[in-house]
Amino acid sequence: MSTMRAAVFEKKGTIKLREVERPRPGPGEALVRVTLTTICGTDVHILKGEYPVRPGLIVGHEPVGVIEELGPGVVGFNRGDRVIAGAITPCGQCRACLSGYGSQCSHGSDTFQTLGGWRFGNTINGCQAEYVLVPSAQANLAKIPDGLRDEEVILCPDIMSTGFSASERGHVRLGDAVAVFAQGPIGLCATAGAKMSGASLVIGVDKVPARLEMAKRMGADVVIDYSQQDAVAEIKRLTGGGADVAIEALGQQSTFENALRCVHAAGTVSSLGVYSGHLAVPLDAMAAGLGDHTIVTTLCPGGKERMRRLMNVVAARRAPFEALVTHSFSLDQIEAAYELFAHQRDGVMKIAIRP
Amino acid sequence: MSTMRAAVFEKKGTIKLREVERPRPGPGEALVRVTLTTICGTDVHILKGEYPVRPGLIVGHEPVGVIEELGPGVVGFNRGDRVIAGAITPCGQCRACLSGYGSQCSHGSDTFQTLGGWRFGNTINGCQAEYVLVPSAQANLAKIPDGLRDEEVILCPDIMSTGFSASERGHVRLGDAVAVFAQGPIGLCATAGAKMSGASLVIGVDKVPARLEMAKRMGADVVIDYSQQDAVAEIKRLTGGGADVAIEALGQQSTFENALRCVHAAGTVSSLGVYSGHLAVPLDAMAAGLGDHTIVTTLCPGGKERMRRLMNVVAARRAPFEALVTHSFSLDQIEAAYELFAHQRDGVMKIAIRP
Amino acid sequence: MSTMRAAVFEKKGTIKLREVERPRPGPGEALVRVTLTTICGTDVHILKGEYPVRPGLIVGHEPVGVIEELGPGVVGFNRGDRVIAGAITPCGQCRACLSGYGSQCSHGSDTFQTLGGWRFGNTINGCQAEYVLVPSAQANLAKIPDGLRDEEVILCPDIMSTGFSASERGHVRLGDAVAVFAQGPIGLCATAGAKMSGASLVIGVDKVPARLEMAKRMGADVVIDYSQQDAVAEIKRLTGGGADVAIEALGQQSTFENALRCVHAAGTVSSLGVYSGHLAVPLDAMAAGLGDHTIVTTLCPGGKERMRRLMNVVAARRAPFEALVTHSFSLDQIEAAYELFAHQRDGVMKIAIRP
Amino acid sequence: MSTMRAAVFEKKGTIKLREVERPRPGPGEALVRVTLTTICGTDVHILKGEYPVRPGLIVGHEPVGVIEELGPGVVGFNRGDRVIAGAITPCGQCRACLSGYGSQCSHGSDTFQTLGGWRFGNTINGCQAEYVLVPSAQANLAKIPDGLRDEEVILCPDIMSTGFSASERGHVRLGDAVAVFAQGPIGLCATAGAKMSGASLVIGVDKVPARLEMAKRMGADVVIDYSQQDAVAEIKRLTGGGADVAIEALGQQSTFENALRCVHAAGTVSSLGVYSGHLAVPLDAMAAGLGDHTIVTTLCPGGKERMRRLMNVVAARRAPFEALVTHSFSLDQIEAAYELFAHQRDGVMKIAIRP
Repeated sequence: MSTMRAAVFEKKGTIKLREVERPRPGPGEALVRVTLTTICGTDVHILKGEYPVRPGLIVGHEPVGVIEELGPGVVGFNRGDRVIAGAITPCGQCRACLSGYGSQCSHGSDTFQTLGGWRFGNTINGCQAEYVLVPSAQANLAKIPDGLRDEEVILCPDIMSTGFSASERGHVRLGDAVAVFAQGPIGLCATAGAKMSGASLVIGVDKVPARLEMAKRMGADVVIDYSQQDAVAEIKRLTGGGADVAIEALGQQSTFENALRCVHAAGTVSSLGVYSGHLAVPLDAMAAGLGDHTIVTTLCPGGKERMRRLMNVVAARRAPFEALVTHSFSLDQIEAAYELFAHQRDGVMKIAIRP
Repeated sequence: MSTMRAAVFEKKGTIKLREVERPRPGPGEALVRVTLTTICGTDVHILKGEYPVRPGLIVGHEPVGVIEELGPGVVGFNRGDRVIAGAITPCGQCRACLSGYGSQCSHGSDTFQTLGGWRFGNTINGCQAEYVLVPSAQANLAKIPDGLRDEEVILCPDIMSTGFSASERGHVRLGDAVAVFAQGPIGLCATAGAKMSGASLVIGVDKVPARLEMAKRMGADVVIDYSQQDAVAEIKRLTGGGADVAIEALGQQSTFENALRCVHAAGTVSSLGVYSGHLAVPLDAMAAGLGDHTIVTTLCPGGKERMRRLMNVVAARRAPFEALVTHSFSLDQIEAAYELFAHQRDGVMKIAIRP
Repeated sequence: MSTMRAAVFEKKGTIKLREVERPRPGPGEALVRVTLTTICGTDVHILKGEYPVRPGLIVGHEPVGVIEELGPGVVGFNRGDRVIAGAITPCGQCRACLSGYGSQCSHGSDTFQTLGGWRFGNTINGCQAEYVLVPSAQANLAKIPDGLRDEEVILCPDIMSTGFSASERGHVRLGDAVAVFAQGPIGLCATAGAKMSGASLVIGVDKVPARLEMAKRMGADVVIDYSQQDAVAEIKRLTGGGADVAIEALGQQSTFENALRCVHAAGTVSSLGVYSGHLAVPLDAMAAGLGDHTIVTTLCPGGKERMRRLMNVVAARRAPFEALVTHSFSLDQIEAAYELFAHQRDGVMKIAIRP
Repeated sequence: MSTMRAAVFEKKGTIKLREVERPRPGPGEALVRVTLTTICGTDVHILKGEYPVRPGLIVGHEPVGVIEELGPGVVGFNRGDRVIAGAITPCGQCRACLSGYGSQCSHGSDTFQTLGGWRFGNTINGCQAEYVLVPSAQANLAKIPDGLRDEEVILCPDIMSTGFSASERGHVRLGDAVAVFAQGPIGLCATAGAKMSGASLVIGVDKVPARLEMAKRMGADVVIDYSQQDAVAEIKRLTGGGADVAIEALGQQSTFENALRCVHAAGTVSSLGVYSGHLAVPLDAMAAGLGDHTIVTTLCPGGKERMRRLMNVVAARRAPFEALVTHSFSLDQIEAAYELFAHQRDGVMKIAIRP
């Protein structure tokens, strides 16, 4: 029996590097040797016990690697192909997938599931390990174009996909004004995505100077430090009455509320954050009948076709996505990496983890 | 000086029939002799002082009539033409209108307004009167097709336009399952609109037996009395996991919340109600990150092109819209009509008022 | 070795009932015992050698049946389930499928194919047989709702799916005027689909009295016999300047041209026909720069989710789809059925074939 | 009586600078003192008698200027405001405008017109003059943002609006591959627009080296000289099977045909060119039933809201639009400017004309 090293959730507060059995691919699956992965804010929620997973699960949902072995029925790929897979791994064949909502994939079931399609490091073993099994491999293995390094595509599986979906679902148009609330990794990708979608005025909002500085590099035309300025008032002033689209990238009442307050009466709020507790709609800020607003919420879309398009965006090199990877650790040091990331020290944004 | 009779808001609790000056059309306006109008729930809010308008204002925003006089610059119409105008009267020439959001028309201003484009019986004199001035007449006068009586088109200006917008903005598709919460006049039009938009399963929810009965006549395949059944659970059962689109037609926390609870994880809530107080999003009912939901809110869209399309729908006679007009009063009796309507007596749905 | 009877293309002019080997399902496949199928116009093109398929191929692409055996990896279904599968069987996992274009499925390949995703009776054995192998079964088996008979769902796999796609791809709106050129089986389904999509004026065009009569039953408000009237002029008159959407359901220069001529300058032509030879755009009929037209062409969309929605439409019983099945033959008599259908005798529209 | 100088079409082959009466604005109109304008390819067609206008008409449809006088009823603007108006001047109040198709504006009429909404230098006097009357001024006057010079916004009224519409109507998505056929002024704007809409691979096709060079400056990732290479084959190679969207910017059979040939089987052709003679659809290049293609044709959209968005795009300075203005003449020299432009000498792209 072969073994491998993997970061395993043991109990609230403990993710440990363990030696575990190396899996073998079944029908429709692929075994990928992980060459680079990263830690997501959600993994920290798992570590802290705020998001429940079963003890013993390998965490991580952002894999870059090389195909080691293909299960029966996977065609068009070869051992040795460099690939990524999205954080969410749609099967392509259930009701949700065939309706265009792969993020809500039910993995073969015929009914829409309310838990969403996220599996890696949630309901099946993830990729903070030497090897990862990719389910529905035919729908999820995306070949890395020649000329792109692992570090350049590591953001595609989750934060680029999520960040870019904000403008896609929010239907940003050429010449629009877009405000992005919170400039963490996902917000920064949302900022880049808004600019690439044709917005002529992209406004980044945060209070951390380094993040506001990075927002400019990612495409923000203007940045607002909300600890120094009334962000909603300033956005209304800059846009002559309200933004066309506001993107929420944090998952808090204040950012959701400000997003609704800063758009004009026919505007759109595109919400990426994962909220908890209580979320209220600020009726006082809205026209009677709530105006003609649109609010869209989105989980990270996956699938190889989306990964293909995102890697094409990276290859066009119009924003310095790689600059978001601020730190690098080996898989052996992953516990230290979690420590750094959980405390958001040293200006960390994303950490490259090398098995 | 000519005079005319009109229902005037005097103070909280008092709308009186008064003899007032008959207006003359200025540039771009038309004077319409009103032949039929009706009372809206919003008018009752005005009567009760719950929605503020200035004392002395003529109320009413649902006009059917005949062109009496055209102001300078209005072309393509003639004295004697039978017309309607929408409750909201977009100018067609401001930023909101040219962006496709006539309901948020700012009437010539270049900035989006948050108060919306509603003017009749709100910021200018309305149509519960013998005559009404129609602003931006070129954009708002819609000729009544031959063969349609006043009673058949009286619902077009507001409740048909509002009710139908729910499915349009919610993108109902052929074969969809749609739930409509509340079967008042707007909800009943939303029920008809969902069916006409291709939904194969339209579910009407209310607790008043007469309204549930009318829902069936308007196109509901199934009706649910929420006082007898758990509406959300029943909708999930009937739809195999959740409706594709839920329409909210009341403006209350419970209906908004149930609408969100009854759709599947990639579903749409199309909200028509005018909320007050506090409105909360039921996070417990939604997937992490709020799933991939879409929430759209809509005010009654206006403009002659929309009125033209709605009258075509009436002319096709696929739902008994006229049956919603349950009572008839002369303008002289309008105070009694308000009395009846405000107390929702005698199974009243809509009241025809004849000047 | 088990055998079965099947209609086999032998050579130009010859489709014969043969005893052939009964197949066994491989990974991801399902074996379905066919209980009802039908003959399509495309099958006649195959018979006549106008559409090339390899000799020895079993023809037919509209299966209704019962699951006989499931291959490895197909979950959520059971032997004995009553099912249909679409004429086109998307894999759900290739670039085209994951882009929302299952009709152009490349069956596992990563590149878009220009030959489209049609396989049954084209590149793999079809369903005019006692049994048929369904590929990508997880994505294609659609359970028949209780209460629907085989005859009621036999049109879903191809002609309903194709006919309804015309209004979906053409974005028919509530109150639109839609003209449908040619009232064969697909055109009749397009007529029903236009009405169900909210068109208030559906105009059916043909010259065969029985088809015009059926058009009325399927939802046409007006029918035009183009051999008696100038169809384009009459449509312009009825619509006050031009239809909003025109549907082409024949595949000829004259119908394509008239569709473009009869819409207004910002109208849409939704084309379903399979053209051959030469197809010209009538520049004289169009505004400079071709106006603001939209022309969409569509192959029959497949997949179990679409089949589910179409069967829901049938279950709502808003149009007499079953009336299009004018004749019935056993599989043993299929050569006679081809004879009748190829010559379009006895007012044949669709023929039910029972193995 | 005041007079002014203006370029007047006299007869086929003759556009002359004449002294004509200076107009006064009527209701809803504005008189604008022209500070910059330019010559369009369409003006050359008028000069050559290939596009018919009445003798005596002032030509030109791309105005930049200063408000000199406002007619009755125009609010929110002041004498001295710097403004532009689009080449097409939608009224905002007719059926076409209220349907979202301002380019097909019928100027007050209730029926869709097939001649389109273009008026300046076509059916009313244009702007190659010291002054121009702007109709429906409320809908068409767009204030120039502070900090933008006349030369920077001169392309907004026509070629930027037209060029950008190609990607908007063609629904270019993040990460798409877009090919643009012909790199004249409109094609170059289409190239910039495709890049700004999120395309990750923009391919410019022409044969003139200076235009291919400019295409790179405007955003093309790759350029193809079709006189040296098989453009369709090269596009298919670069895109792995076909472009997602192809833009036609010339109006010829060969470019239209190549646009259809180079997209994949579910691709979109967005056509901007004005065709003449005969236009054929290349059936051999398309899947049976024409695949799942979309073909959209677009006239230059106008209206102040669009001009506002386009000027915002210019202000964001993401492409060197001003570099397309290669020559400059005074209005007095306009006959020489026509001579240069008609013969396309000296690498001319656009000529600034200063009254």
